[in-house]
Amino acid sequence: MKKLLLASTALVMSAGYAAADVSLSGDARMGIVYDSGAANELSFTSRARVTFTLSGETDTGLAFGASFRADNAGGAATDRASSTGTAPETVPFSGQGMTAGSVFISGDFGELRMGDVSGAAEFIVGDLAGVGLTGLGDLNEMTYLVNSPAQWRPTARYSYTLDGLKLALSIENPQTDATGDRFAASIAASYTFDGFTGGLGYESVLDGADHIIGFVGADIEGITAKAIYGRISGGDTQYGLSVSGSFDEVTVTAFGRRDFDSDTHYGIGASYNLGGGAALRGGVVRNGTSSDTVADFGLAFTF
Amino acid sequence: MKKLLLASTALVMSAGYAAADVSLSGDARMGIVYDSGAANELSFTSRARVTFTLSGETDTGLAFGASFRADNAGGAATDRASSTGTAPETVPFSGQGMTAGSVFISGDFGELRMGDVSGAAEFIVGDLAGVGLTGLGDLNEMTYLVNSPAQWRPTARYSYTLDGLKLALSIENPQTDATGDRFAASIAASYTFDGFTGGLGYESVLDGADHIIGFVGADIEGITAKAIYGRISGGDTQYGLSVSGSFDEVTVTAFGRRDFDSDTHYGIGASYNLGGGAALRGGVVRNGTSSDTVADFGLAFTF
Amino acid sequence: MKKLLLASTALVMSAGYAAADVSLSGDARMGIVYDSGAANELSFTSRARVTFTLSGETDTGLAFGASFRADNAGGAATDRASSTGTAPETVPFSGQGMTAGSVFISGDFGELRMGDVSGAAEFIVGDLAGVGLTGLGDLNEMTYLVNSPAQWRPTARYSYTLDGLKLALSIENPQTDATGDRFAASIAASYTFDGFTGGLGYESVLDGADHIIGFVGADIEGITAKAIYGRISGGDTQYGLSVSGSFDEVTVTAFGRRDFDSDTHYGIGASYNLGGGAALRGGVVRNGTSSDTVADFGLAFTF
Repeated sequence: MKKLLLASTALVMSAGYAAADVSLSGDARMGIVYDSGAANELSFTSRARVTFTLSGETDTGLAFGASFRADNAGGAATDRASSTGTAPETVPFSGQGMTAGSVFISGDFGELRMGDVSGAAEFIVGDLAGVGLTGLGDLNEMTYLVNSPAQWRPTARYSYTLDGLKLALSIENPQTDATGDRFAASIAASYTFDGFTGGLGYESVLDGADHIIGFVGADIEGITAKAIYGRISGGDTQYGLSVSGSFDEVTVTAFGRRDFDSDTHYGIGASYNLGGGAALRGGVVRNGTSSDTVADFGLAFTF
Repeated sequence: MKKLLLASTALVMSAGYAAADVSLSGDARMGIVYDSGAANELSFTSRARVTFTLSGETDTGLAFGASFRADNAGGAATDRASSTGTAPETVPFSGQGMTAGSVFISGDFGELRMGDVSGAAEFIVGDLAGVGLTGLGDLNEMTYLVNSPAQWRPTARYSYTLDGLKLALSIENPQTDATGDRFAASIAASYTFDGFTGGLGYESVLDGADHIIGFVGADIEGITAKAIYGRISGGDTQYGLSVSGSFDEVTVTAFGRRDFDSDTHYGIGASYNLGGGAALRGGVVRNGTSSDTVADFGLAFTF
Repeated sequence: MKKLLLASTALVMSAGYAAADVSLSGDARMGIVYDSGAANELSFTSRARVTFTLSGETDTGLAFGASFRADNAGGAATDRASSTGTAPETVPFSGQGMTAGSVFISGDFGELRMGDVSGAAEFIVGDLAGVGLTGLGDLNEMTYLVNSPAQWRPTARYSYTLDGLKLALSIENPQTDATGDRFAASIAASYTFDGFTGGLGYESVLDGADHIIGFVGADIEGITAKAIYGRISGGDTQYGLSVSGSFDEVTVTAFGRRDFDSDTHYGIGASYNLGGGAALRGGVVRNGTSSDTVADFGLAFTF
């Protein structure tokens, strides 16, 4: 991917030719997984994926583009929400669109993006650092209210960056309101200064739950730390901490997270960079809900 | 891959070298839709798509190729018709193929194309000019008998062009006859002279309906107009008119169409070219069947 | 696209730079099929496919990569086995992966590959030469125990080549054991000398069937011949012979095969090379199980 972009750049520089373009990148992995809760604890894991990146520029210098994975091509092109949803599907004409991938336009005014985009709070606050070859159930991820099921899409998000300041606003497809009162909006901001970042996000479902979530992070001499705390209306809380350190070719990562159900999840993992886009990677997590221990190990590739 | 790179290299270096090749293009859009008939009138719309174009040339100079979208890759590669069909599916061996995309070979003899290709009448006569970001239900499209459901494919079409004359012949997959008498053929021709075009098409379902449809069109100083009239066996008619005018960066389009059920549909729309493959586009239509008014507005991109 | 090719060219010319990369290739076909057992004997056939090839190299010179078709992008990216399976699906975390395509790493030690990969016996012994535009039901293919349904994947295979010697070892996803005793392994080797090749493979399902299969082949002055004999536990046998000869632009192929049910299948076909990746191809087979005769004829393209 990097190469393709560089190559394109070289071309543009050498000729002044700025055409809309489609480029390819990819990722793959292969390894083994241990799961204490499976009928057979050991299993192989592998996968390969390709991403399309579409990019262009208007005459006045606005950048525009889109991105989606080949395995999500159907969701990126679809005229309406997935068959698991009920709301946008019942709309009496086609053109409702996009449960995967995203489309954007950007310029001095910021960026406007639509599709399967995380809400403002998730975009700014995000998740803890993850571990393992496969993500191991993504137990490092916080819970957010916006954009979760495909039938709430496309979500629209506006974001603006000025030096260390980052602002974002998002709303779900208003059409989602058709099934009841499901319609959520979010606002969030963060500020980065001298390696430290702090941010706060708020999301609210129309006539439903509110969620406020904040984080502080630090990125100093190869050590990255992040703490997140969230509180949903009703009083339940989620919080967690992750730390990641890079030493030459090795990166070690650990996290602990308590979810809204008061279940606590832990994980630790490491990655060894083999160069050229390849890495040896493994991790182990403890799932506090199922009480299972899951571990993996193998090769991760980017192309 | 190596091959592709080498081939590409050779291409540029030797300049006239025509090797078999796969290339990418794409389109995307983002905007909002208003629908008077929806439970919630307003909704977001967005999507992104990529098209594969395969091209080659035989030693004797025949061009061959294929084209399909990434979201249709399954239908383009499939061995038999879609699961919604019943006929070709029951065929006792694989290799029935292709409900999306198309394959062709062409030369001095004309072009032979197979797959999800419109029948001769639709290929020659076509549709009225459409409006809006999303097509707004494609109310500008005429009704044709050939190639509609996926299970009638692949359809085969032969076409020949000589100066202003264009001829086409098409037949559906004879296998479709297996479910009854569903097997349709079509023939059509058009002639273009000094900006004016006239054409006539005929299509017939075996032991079923006949349809004759013709059009006249003009393309003069940026103004394009098209009138279509079709009559199906039994006596029902469909007809319509569209006009489109381009003035610098702005294109305005309008259409009116009466369908076989005597419902009348109207639409008007405009597009503003932002350069580089981007356009601002919007439209409004009145659906004569549902009595709904639908409008959209947003950004359309090509890559 | 044009731009993309030019960019790649510039890169190749400027450096011999070996970064991770994604490339495209494709194939397509169009023609007609006759099937004596179908309700309507004649049908059209066509299809088009694109393959992604991902490739890279570590700092120490190990090659790695992956490959899958666009129509299989979902299976290549999936976290668990297909919905027709039951075993890996019930695993309580994501990351089980890959029912289509494959991922590999290779070096002096050989190659390790995971995904939808044939078992060692199938990899080494393989199938008889096939005929026809569409494969005509693939009656030239032998029966193997490893890797057949998608839910047994990913299968892992290790292979090693040294001059004429080729060794392979494979095991299915141990997770498949969860549904009962379905877990299969295979070992095989072949040796090639002066145009002659002989090979032997063994595969065994845990607490299930064993299968031993061998072949001899010759490739002399454009004539290729191959004989295969396999015996499964219980005593049933399968065997067959294929011969293929190339004379200038024409290749003629014939096979006969007797399966485990003692049904005998025959086929003969021919291909005429048109250059540039195009060929005229046709064949006829007799299916000994259904007693149907199936034939096809048309154009085959590679891109």
